[in-house]
Amino acid sequence: VLALSHEPARGPELGERDVPRAGAGEALVRVQLAGICNTDLEIVRGYMGFAGVLGHELLGVVERCDDVRWVGKRVVGEINLACGACSWCARGLGRHCATRRVLGIVGKDGCFAEHATLPIANLHEVPDEIDDRHAVFVEPLAAAFEIVEQVAVAPGMRVLVAGDGKLGLLCAMVLRDRGADVTVLGRHARKLAIAANVGCRTATVDDFDEVEFDLAVEATGSSAGLASAIERVRPRGTVVLKSTTHGAAEVHTARIVVPEITLVGSRCGPFAPAIAALRAGAIDPTPLIDDTFALADGLRALARAAEPGVLKVLLDPR
Amino acid sequence: VLALSHEPARGPELGERDVPRAGAGEALVRVQLAGICNTDLEIVRGYMGFAGVLGHELLGVVERCDDVRWVGKRVVGEINLACGACSWCARGLGRHCATRRVLGIVGKDGCFAEHATLPIANLHEVPDEIDDRHAVFVEPLAAAFEIVEQVAVAPGMRVLVAGDGKLGLLCAMVLRDRGADVTVLGRHARKLAIAANVGCRTATVDDFDEVEFDLAVEATGSSAGLASAIERVRPRGTVVLKSTTHGAAEVHTARIVVPEITLVGSRCGPFAPAIAALRAGAIDPTPLIDDTFALADGLRALARAAEPGVLKVLLDPR
Repeated sequence: VLALSHEPARGPELGERDVPRAGAGEALVRVQLAGICNTDLEIVRGYMGFAGVLGHELLGVVERCDDVRWVGKRVVGEINLACGACSWCARGLGRHCATRRVLGIVGKDGCFAEHATLPIANLHEVPDEIDDRHAVFVEPLAAAFEIVEQVAVAPGMRVLVAGDGKLGLLCAMVLRDRGADVTVLGRHARKLAIAANVGCRTATVDDFDEVEFDLAVEATGSSAGLASAIERVRPRGTVVLKSTTHGAAEVHTARIVVPEITLVGSRCGPFAPAIAALRAGAIDPTPLIDDTFALADGLRALARAAEPGVLKVLLDPR
Repeated sequence: VLALSHEPARGPELGERDVPRAGAGEALVRVQLAGICNTDLEIVRGYMGFAGVLGHELLGVVERCDDVRWVGKRVVGEINLACGACSWCARGLGRHCATRRVLGIVGKDGCFAEHATLPIANLHEVPDEIDDRHAVFVEPLAAAFEIVEQVAVAPGMRVLVAGDGKLGLLCAMVLRDRGADVTVLGRHARKLAIAANVGCRTATVDDFDEVEFDLAVEATGSSAGLASAIERVRPRGTVVLKSTTHGAAEVHTARIVVPEITLVGSRCGPFAPAIAALRAGAIDPTPLIDDTFALADGLRALARAAEPGVLKVLLDPR
């Protein structure tokens, strides 16, 4: 099968591989659509030292599975493959299992291919009401929903989303859907317009002096964003960190201690509310799609996704 | 009246001043005992640019007050003088009032003097069961109680207190009193023995490799402590920041985002639980007292408090 893989020594390349073998408890999934995430671009630049098939944002159809009830189902898949035996897994926190593998990121071939495998436990059936180009957003949208799992977001709450990239815009959509008064701070008029269309205020970084937000979501993808987000929340406010950047950020701890700011690291999130929001039509991520490429054009797709200002690029292996 | 004051240009000095005038709604307090805090030492080194009478850890007796019911009462006092009119004050968060003055720290003469003034609203009567040398610890002990206001601490929770200074030990006492399984990480056998006496585990920094704590309290007073505390908590664990240090700390944001760590800045706390714990005898801070000086020996007292390894130094103006 055709697959877009990466080796640290060779970089990304497109090639033919054997159909992956579904292990015990796993399903073989025929990939319908896959999304390119910034993490994929970082892996191509050397992050995580990953070697294997890229990709973790997946929509597919189960082709083979020990549990035949799954065969033929349209599915999305959680990306953390937990050991199932440790204390984290016992607490239902397999996303934090210390020996987890992660689809297309750590020790597990990903979904930029005609086929991928995933544990049945990771699969979520996609309701018929959700079309393919919405469903492929379930994984990144779940990461945005993680914020409202971690922080109580009340209607009218003054929220700043710093960053108008893919993740920032999805976070803004989720927070807006919860009734928050959301301001998206970014650099690109085209992206900010997407936020404005869902009822967010928008502002550009060169001309913004608002402070005293109840909550700031740091999704700039830059280490400098943290200090700036801390300055923009009120005393006892919360900063949610979404950017996983290389390198260290400089933080003046007194700026956290004196106003008693809370910082919350936030990564992968729950699929169920993301699926529910897409099913209800409460969130429409399709304005984020800038391009769709055939899998055979995967290298071009990666280059396109890495262009400045480009939002979501999809791969279609069909 | 004799007072120990500080001017950025001249440093600390002892001198005679007029008896301070209690403003509207204020009480004139005759100081019985005052404690030297690290913040006082930092102010003497230039922190906050404060000019005036030093000191904010106060035990005294009300000598003059418009509300005569307070006259003759033994009191301790909250240190933040809020405006009373802003939205923070309206929410009962005067500790975060943007225009607040702070006793002996920002725009308000402190308590290293024979007399001090404080708003009546800041006073707490000290129950008879609490003796003077306990009562003078109410303010720093309240700062330790702030942690259990901010973080749910359950019995058996694995807690690391990084730092065996005054504040670290008070935090350890409060957390131990809540039934947590507390490890104090420090450098001084003598200080660690105080923690061991209240049932804490102890460890020295040169020989410590435990990780996966549920909660870490950063009270080392050093900017480097933050990164180390982050490494020692489990995924989804909490780091409470107590140190207000000069300068910037380096933080790898991915170490917060990927394990979804929460960081909580923590400053002044509630007096009521501190008074209740001292009244019940649940916490005995007196092992922290290393020395008591007459106010007339205030400069020697500051020097003593600044010696490495010295814990609480008290001033007695009587």
